[in-house]
Amino acid sequence: MFEKVLIANREEIAVRIAQACADLGIDSVAVYSDADEDAKHVRLADEAYHIGPSKAKESYLDQDALLEAARAADADAIHPGYGFLAENESFAAAVEESEFEWIGPPSDVMADFGEKTKARKIMAEADVPIVPGTTEPITSPEAVEAFADEHGYPVAIKADGGGGGRGLKIVHEPSQIESKLQEAIREGDAYFDNPNVYLERFLEGPRHIEVQIMGDEHGNVRHFGERDCTVQRRQQKLVEESPSPVLDDETRDAICAAARRGAAAADYVNAGTVEFLYEDGDFYFIEVNARIQVEHTVTEELTGIDLVKWQLRVAAGEELPFSQDEIEPRGAAMEFRLNAEDPDNDFTPLPGTLSTYEPPRGIGVRVDDGVDEGDSIAPFYDSMFGKLIVTGRDRAEVIARGKRALDETAIEGVPTTVPFHRELLEDEGFLANDHTTKYVDRELVGE
Amino acid sequence: MFEKVLIANREEIAVRIAQACADLGIDSVAVYSDADEDAKHVRLADEAYHIGPSKAKESYLDQDALLEAARAADADAIHPGYGFLAENESFAAAVEESEFEWIGPPSDVMADFGEKTKARKIMAEADVPIVPGTTEPITSPEAVEAFADEHGYPVAIKADGGGGGRGLKIVHEPSQIESKLQEAIREGDAYFDNPNVYLERFLEGPRHIEVQIMGDEHGNVRHFGERDCTVQRRQQKLVEESPSPVLDDETRDAICAAARRGAAAADYVNAGTVEFLYEDGDFYFIEVNARIQVEHTVTEELTGIDLVKWQLRVAAGEELPFSQDEIEPRGAAMEFRLNAEDPDNDFTPLPGTLSTYEPPRGIGVRVDDGVDEGDSIAPFYDSMFGKLIVTGRDRAEVIARGKRALDETAIEGVPTTVPFHRELLEDEGFLANDHTTKYVDRELVGE
Repeated sequence: MFEKVLIANREEIAVRIAQACADLGIDSVAVYSDADEDAKHVRLADEAYHIGPSKAKESYLDQDALLEAARAADADAIHPGYGFLAENESFAAAVEESEFEWIGPPSDVMADFGEKTKARKIMAEADVPIVPGTTEPITSPEAVEAFADEHGYPVAIKADGGGGGRGLKIVHEPSQIESKLQEAIREGDAYFDNPNVYLERFLEGPRHIEVQIMGDEHGNVRHFGERDCTVQRRQQKLVEESPSPVLDDETRDAICAAARRGAAAADYVNAGTVEFLYEDGDFYFIEVNARIQVEHTVTEELTGIDLVKWQLRVAAGEELPFSQDEIEPRGAAMEFRLNAEDPDNDFTPLPGTLSTYEPPRGIGVRVDDGVDEGDSIAPFYDSMFGKLIVTGRDRAEVIARGKRALDETAIEGVPTTVPFHRELLEDEGFLANDHTTKYVDRELVGE
Repeated sequence: MFEKVLIANREEIAVRIAQACADLGIDSVAVYSDADEDAKHVRLADEAYHIGPSKAKESYLDQDALLEAARAADADAIHPGYGFLAENESFAAAVEESEFEWIGPPSDVMADFGEKTKARKIMAEADVPIVPGTTEPITSPEAVEAFADEHGYPVAIKADGGGGGRGLKIVHEPSQIESKLQEAIREGDAYFDNPNVYLERFLEGPRHIEVQIMGDEHGNVRHFGERDCTVQRRQQKLVEESPSPVLDDETRDAICAAARRGAAAADYVNAGTVEFLYEDGDFYFIEVNARIQVEHTVTEELTGIDLVKWQLRVAAGEELPFSQDEIEPRGAAMEFRLNAEDPDNDFTPLPGTLSTYEPPRGIGVRVDDGVDEGDSIAPFYDSMFGKLIVTGRDRAEVIARGKRALDETAIEGVPTTVPFHRELLEDEGFLANDHTTKYVDRELVGE
């Protein structure tokens, strides 16, 4: 096992990884920008290295600075967390070629899933349903028109290098084809350095269902059950839960088996998530997130398996010790993202100082965070500073406990998503599972 | 279901019950003494009533004041928690005869187990092994001598009304018989208003194993697995864990089945614990605690069942919905009691103000407590102000997480048992399971 791991990240996921290292007897090495000098992830790690100014581009995205810190610390391996460089193939490849182990999927697996058309091809060949659309890049307005003739409007034009809603354009009628195509190409080029785009049928009211998977270097790939991440605001997840309250057992088994099959086809190693849309009883693969996700906690609660610890163990060459049948999700869980945003004001991120921060405690309550009372939330990064994860025997128990835990959460100094979550747990559409991925935008924040 | 429940207790168990009420949509009513006017259990409850001065005898032990508060609040039921009046038959009977429901075992069941000789008889008749000894009170030194002749020294003389080590005297040789007998009789009379004593063979190096049980009014009695509470200081539990690391599966099944059989024989209703000593492969019943226990949390973590919620439901007449086979403990858990005591100074309780109180968070960490930062710990009551419960897949994972969680616990203003727990988790005897109930006194605090 590694003796020392560098954590190339910040905030709650850096804390989470430092805790997993501590639990395995591994020394953790934090890195920090100017803004994060006194951050919790620095306080909790065994060592810490300054890597640059506050701007992410000059610190958490600076590959050379990270590798230099790893050398200075004499680390054995690098964990990228999520975001920043976690899905950056060139960084993964640079680490693989260095003296350090990369704690994540190999760069070639990342490359397979980084291009969406390639990912769609792999999945289709593994007999995993994909959203009807092209598996090759398209370039002409005529291709869009022909697709619309066959599948009808709306049509989704998606950046091949995209994900999470960036570089996604919806065409509702023929007159929009040219302009939307150019926009998608431009965004793909600007954000992902990849001007290719492809087409998909646009699902009007889907649920977002994803499956946690993990593979090892010995050829084992396991799934760890599904999560339902349908509560989204502008394609950003706000609440995730498991089990999905809309799947029957047969569909659940099918979607989990499909995810595992697709991952195995790509020789997947380490943690990842296979994402699907689900509508009218059918599910369709959309993308793979080749990294640990924010909402991995929900799966940990149900399975009792520490996924971040297993990321470390798998990267060190260990074999996953559980057969598929031995991974048995139990109960239900829901994660509420704690963002320093104003839900009453278009979810505008509002950095500031947590003058009061008393997270809830008690039965069924887990809090993963990157802050303590008195800490500041910097304006340079993502607005999420923590996560409240609530567990129970079933969805009803989780919702009741969630209300209580949110009521006991005392935060002052910055506006947060806590009032939004409280409202959600009283919302009839959510309680009845009538919501889709558009529900928050359309019904709850009145877009 | 009840609409309003009065909680006749304070501190963490009052908070725990208020949370269970909130989760069931029941209004909770707190009571408080002068010292507890601003206590967390008062802040968290929906209503609160002052019941008297700080001294427990004039507040939390004042039956009339409690019943009066219940009437003023128009409560439907009373939950006594643990300690104070929780095992007081006369209070249970008074509540049963009042307009309120009693959330606990019926007073006649309590009476059966309150007298230890009676409890031993019930268990022996239900084919539950008891510690070799008398099932009738004894009065003469000759009876002790005869018993010692048969079973050898040492002999334990125990107060019939006792429990938890009070009224327990150990006779190591014939010359001690007369004086120890008189002491036991005196203590039993003074503490429990019952001068009867009985005899038991004294086990030199036992483990303390107990089984959580619950019964309903429909004749169902279930067990919820065992806890190992061998880490004790002067017969006061400090750390509890499950599963017991010394039991093989066969013995575990046998001890749990025995507890359930004994409880069923007494028509047990609501929550309780059947306590055993275990030595050299054999287990012996010692007593029943006819109430919820401090360490019920450990069982909740393994079974995923909210025991306090089920206390409320059973008291309202609901039937336990799980068959014995459906109660499946998973993983491992350990509870660390957070007491305001100085482990370096003979565990002397030291009240004071929690100028810093930052309990740990993250995966596998649950904290049940009766305080927030800035709260005072009053000198009038028990020194326990919270509990850290750590859960994992197995004992090794729990111990690693426990170390990390204890390291992340920041408490200033009062000395606590946290340093003791840290030391325990590094102690070879504890790690190797070589400890007995005398281990802390003999090896760890150097008595």
